[in-house]
Amino acid sequence: MIRFECDYTEGAHENIIKKLVETNFEQTAGYGNDPYTESAKAKIRKACNRPDADVHFLVGGTQANITVIASILKHHQGVISAHTGHIQEHETGAIEATGHRIITTGNDDGKLTAQQIIDIYDSHMNDSIREFYVQPGMVYISHPTENGTMYTKKEIEDIYAACKERNIPLFIDGARLGYGLMSPKSDMTLEDIANNSDVFYIGGTKVGALFGEAVVITNEAVKKDFRYHIKQRGGLLAKGRLLGIQFDVLFEDNLYFEVSKHAATLALDIKNAFLEKGIPFRYDSDSNQQFPILTKEQYETITEKYSVSYNGELPDGRVVVRFCTSWATKEEDVKALIEDIKAL
Amino acid sequence: MIRFECDYTEGAHENIIKKLVETNFEQTAGYGNDPYTESAKAKIRKACNRPDADVHFLVGGTQANITVIASILKHHQGVISAHTGHIQEHETGAIEATGHRIITTGNDDGKLTAQQIIDIYDSHMNDSIREFYVQPGMVYISHPTENGTMYTKKEIEDIYAACKERNIPLFIDGARLGYGLMSPKSDMTLEDIANNSDVFYIGGTKVGALFGEAVVITNEAVKKDFRYHIKQRGGLLAKGRLLGIQFDVLFEDNLYFEVSKHAATLALDIKNAFLEKGIPFRYDSDSNQQFPILTKEQYETITEKYSVSYNGELPDGRVVVRFCTSWATKEEDVKALIEDIKAL
Amino acid sequence: MIRFECDYTEGAHENIIKKLVETNFEQTAGYGNDPYTESAKAKIRKACNRPDADVHFLVGGTQANITVIASILKHHQGVISAHTGHIQEHETGAIEATGHRIITTGNDDGKLTAQQIIDIYDSHMNDSIREFYVQPGMVYISHPTENGTMYTKKEIEDIYAACKERNIPLFIDGARLGYGLMSPKSDMTLEDIANNSDVFYIGGTKVGALFGEAVVITNEAVKKDFRYHIKQRGGLLAKGRLLGIQFDVLFEDNLYFEVSKHAATLALDIKNAFLEKGIPFRYDSDSNQQFPILTKEQYETITEKYSVSYNGELPDGRVVVRFCTSWATKEEDVKALIEDIKAL
Amino acid sequence: MIRFECDYTEGAHENIIKKLVETNFEQTAGYGNDPYTESAKAKIRKACNRPDADVHFLVGGTQANITVIASILKHHQGVISAHTGHIQEHETGAIEATGHRIITTGNDDGKLTAQQIIDIYDSHMNDSIREFYVQPGMVYISHPTENGTMYTKKEIEDIYAACKERNIPLFIDGARLGYGLMSPKSDMTLEDIANNSDVFYIGGTKVGALFGEAVVITNEAVKKDFRYHIKQRGGLLAKGRLLGIQFDVLFEDNLYFEVSKHAATLALDIKNAFLEKGIPFRYDSDSNQQFPILTKEQYETITEKYSVSYNGELPDGRVVVRFCTSWATKEEDVKALIEDIKAL
Repeated sequence: MIRFECDYTEGAHENIIKKLVETNFEQTAGYGNDPYTESAKAKIRKACNRPDADVHFLVGGTQANITVIASILKHHQGVISAHTGHIQEHETGAIEATGHRIITTGNDDGKLTAQQIIDIYDSHMNDSIREFYVQPGMVYISHPTENGTMYTKKEIEDIYAACKERNIPLFIDGARLGYGLMSPKSDMTLEDIANNSDVFYIGGTKVGALFGEAVVITNEAVKKDFRYHIKQRGGLLAKGRLLGIQFDVLFEDNLYFEVSKHAATLALDIKNAFLEKGIPFRYDSDSNQQFPILTKEQYETITEKYSVSYNGELPDGRVVVRFCTSWATKEEDVKALIEDIKAL
Repeated sequence: MIRFECDYTEGAHENIIKKLVETNFEQTAGYGNDPYTESAKAKIRKACNRPDADVHFLVGGTQANITVIASILKHHQGVISAHTGHIQEHETGAIEATGHRIITTGNDDGKLTAQQIIDIYDSHMNDSIREFYVQPGMVYISHPTENGTMYTKKEIEDIYAACKERNIPLFIDGARLGYGLMSPKSDMTLEDIANNSDVFYIGGTKVGALFGEAVVITNEAVKKDFRYHIKQRGGLLAKGRLLGIQFDVLFEDNLYFEVSKHAATLALDIKNAFLEKGIPFRYDSDSNQQFPILTKEQYETITEKYSVSYNGELPDGRVVVRFCTSWATKEEDVKALIEDIKAL
Repeated sequence: MIRFECDYTEGAHENIIKKLVETNFEQTAGYGNDPYTESAKAKIRKACNRPDADVHFLVGGTQANITVIASILKHHQGVISAHTGHIQEHETGAIEATGHRIITTGNDDGKLTAQQIIDIYDSHMNDSIREFYVQPGMVYISHPTENGTMYTKKEIEDIYAACKERNIPLFIDGARLGYGLMSPKSDMTLEDIANNSDVFYIGGTKVGALFGEAVVITNEAVKKDFRYHIKQRGGLLAKGRLLGIQFDVLFEDNLYFEVSKHAATLALDIKNAFLEKGIPFRYDSDSNQQFPILTKEQYETITEKYSVSYNGELPDGRVVVRFCTSWATKEEDVKALIEDIKAL
Repeated sequence: MIRFECDYTEGAHENIIKKLVETNFEQTAGYGNDPYTESAKAKIRKACNRPDADVHFLVGGTQANITVIASILKHHQGVISAHTGHIQEHETGAIEATGHRIITTGNDDGKLTAQQIIDIYDSHMNDSIREFYVQPGMVYISHPTENGTMYTKKEIEDIYAACKERNIPLFIDGARLGYGLMSPKSDMTLEDIANNSDVFYIGGTKVGALFGEAVVITNEAVKKDFRYHIKQRGGLLAKGRLLGIQFDVLFEDNLYFEVSKHAATLALDIKNAFLEKGIPFRYDSDSNQQFPILTKEQYETITEKYSVSYNGELPDGRVVVRFCTSWATKEEDVKALIEDIKAL
């Protein structure tokens, strides 16, 4: 069975493994107070062209979402999110467990528009009895989204302008950030992300690391006391250097971008194979997740050889599945898959 | 500088590193649904002689504490803990952030007695207006404690009997469990721990792993829905096999116990060196943490060469420090230290 | 200006005021441990024909909702509610502030069906990765709903059967319960409510009292420790007798039902006046809230003399308003209003 | 049985009852948007000589404490309180249920000193690993305290200076504020309280009202969005005028101060009777709560005729009890008590 079901089926890029082996018996201070972590932070600041940014390393995505959101919101505030957002759909009420409502809006594609944000913010704040509603206190988006869709630079700029005008921070979940930025269809850079948000994270778990997300904070108010929140939410890794080492390697010689490009390119190869076969998609994704709509027969044929995510059945009986590529996807596996798609 | 400041200054045991390297490019399902995790669970059940136990792997100690405690308590309940407990003293209000009070009691040594638990429970529950107080809903102890002290088998049995009589679960934080069980002064086995608690964890972060704590649940009520809590608190590792692999190695051929014994033995060597020198201790520890009381001069001499934890100054000006040994401590470093103690 | 904007514009029924005056200087124990509270509880148990029920008195509706819901749910659970439910739409995220998600479903009319509850429960519980979603832990409905609509006895029975089959408690918010039960269109009694739910409350604030909601619990598991939750959420009134006295008066000689019938009957008179005028309604309500759709001109004419709630504008420019009657509504005011409706 | 057990055994001052009767059938807007509430706010601002203050009315003390504290703290912060504070000792973990730790300090008398606040704040903030501890985010004191003791003006000024220097708000719980301010031993005025705190409340429940606490906020940051918190915590009374009317009457013609003086004076009469008898006190109170230490015999004799609070047994077998006077205490009852004390 060849696995395309998700982007975390393997361990880590060989360079990371090599460095972990090399450094294993070094003695360093704990909790991220080590030279590898410092070095990784410096490289990320440079890659973002934001020497003023604070960088923190967390183990996983849900932990990063909890920590960032709870660090920003006051008790009477909620976070605006697409109704398809990861925090709404896949995290067991983790945000509500910190005391906050997720205020959902948006369409089927997984993205929010600046206008949707404005509308939901204004409808909450302009009401004469606005204290009966949760106050929108921040905005959460993902790039790329859960559906693989991507924001354009213009869209992100508009969203950030709307947030700044209303004085609420914008948080970008970048669990798959590399796969978005390095898509051939992307018109954004890491610098654009850093300059059009208050806080975001660079996903490592799905992009070459064993685990780890690099939270980048550019807004002074969000920077303050952030380590308290990491510790309070259980995210302060004792051997913090494990995160530092991994990101230090990923941001050496553009490795993060190269492995991301690898996955995004292979994903578009798969996309094209389906399109050429006349097989439609549930979402129009140009990143590493592809959601073709298969007939039952096609589904059965494909899953004899490949494991994929099952994303539900349409009213007409067809099936939506998800194919993921990753930094570790082998070209030969994609070639085999493409042949099998052609043969469907 | 030789580091004795804590027990997490190195990476992981070489067997673990070796296995991580070997398995790195295997494809497995995520979230702990992989064969390594299954194998590790089976080995731990066997080591505990509790085939009925549920085993879950979490990344770190605070996360384990949050997840276990929030999974047990209802909103109106609190957790009884020593006032020196890790959850009370080192976790940034993580338990309160889940909505629960820590009900503290106990003495200076870091341990609770069955009688203290009974007294605080009964004083809360026998009051005619008991609904004005948080209801004690569980008990949290550490073995060994933050102060290095250890429970005897009899003490743990008495505590567990008191808990059962009052129908509140007992949770044992075993972040350093191996270093307690393998102390030459210990009269307990892992099986004793499993049979005298409702839930406990076997610390890996400080005992040979890169990171990881194995939560073992023997109480049916606590087992139910536990994975929900892991996910909600941000503790469900995407590449869960990383935890499985590590514990699978640690519980192969008694490795966990051997590396623990190594550290505990060296710690007692250090203890004896101080005792022979007539240097007293802040707490009477027989596990891997030793807390000698040094004069300012001794402190300055020692810290020229060794990094230790500074635990505060006594009224007479002397200084309490902490020396930790670990699975990775080199015998030669301990020998050098002992020589330097003699020379003080 | 004659006020029809809500059902809490006056003080309390004169019998209540009279009793408060009479008892003012009596000395009683606090926190509901007084004979008036005992008497009120006994009368309510009798009116429900449930001698086994626990009865508690709280000051207001949001407080009652918070207290009941937080007393039932464990951290990983959420409450199923109509998306129009009071807890979702009017309480500033009070439920999320206790750590729980509201799982919304349902149609535009404000009611839930048994099938909707089954569907949303099963979709959450049957998923192979169900621990990624909040676990439905209870159901919240209102009778009558926020939109004035009412459940039939058969509908409530079906809902309760669905809840029991899935082993999740049913909670009925009865802030306006009297106005529903005493509607000429109702086919339910208070006994039916008590027998088809695990916990519900009888609203006093909107039905004759200065303030107060009587929470009635028939499920043993929900009864346990409920006073802890009242105190923890700030709802234990020092002079608890104030609540006891009010409900003692309301459940003397059917007063609660009589004043409810008064309001419900007048509301239907208003409804008929609009219908005869050919003015449509936003929701088909037979209880004390009526939601006619007015043209801008009609709206302006009516609001010169009557204060109503403004419930939003339709795409065609017409306006939805809410007229409320209550125990205190004067027949002469309704007559004047009906004349003015005729003259529109 | 004559009740001295607490200060909430009767209803309300007759002027309040009279006004509630008079206004009962007036129609007003809900949620405190009525002319009585406006008038009461104006009078309180004037009595505090703080025209800039925001005033809000809540039903009870625990509710006021929850609402104020949760409105101020961010998730990683806690509230400094005496270990005898009401929030620590009598509120069922209500503060922890909002996610925050109570950081306790102080002595047996129930008061905090400026130095204790400085010490605990600095010990938390000066630590090199301060993010492992809850950050002190505000200070909570009561005046008078749970033990009847009172701050001097100088003490409060010093505390407030310490808070301002550390930039953390000071919150004064004034559930019994009148009984402190009007004690013959008091050197403070309401204006002093308002000028030496960021937020405080004027207790009505125990001082002449049926229920109600007037929260006075002078700090701009605390003012912002406060109504959101009231609603979220279930404290926004539908018929808000009931609170407005009561405080409007209490602050008419100095009524609040007069009834307070009545109680405080009678309490000192009782105190003197015990002192003359040579009976000692547990706490040195000059406000309306008195805590004599009685022999078993004295206790039995007294409680044949008077109900008091039982506050525990001393090691020597003597008993601490609490006598409370209030706005409603009859002089004849105090005279009878004094005679009975003499006869002990």
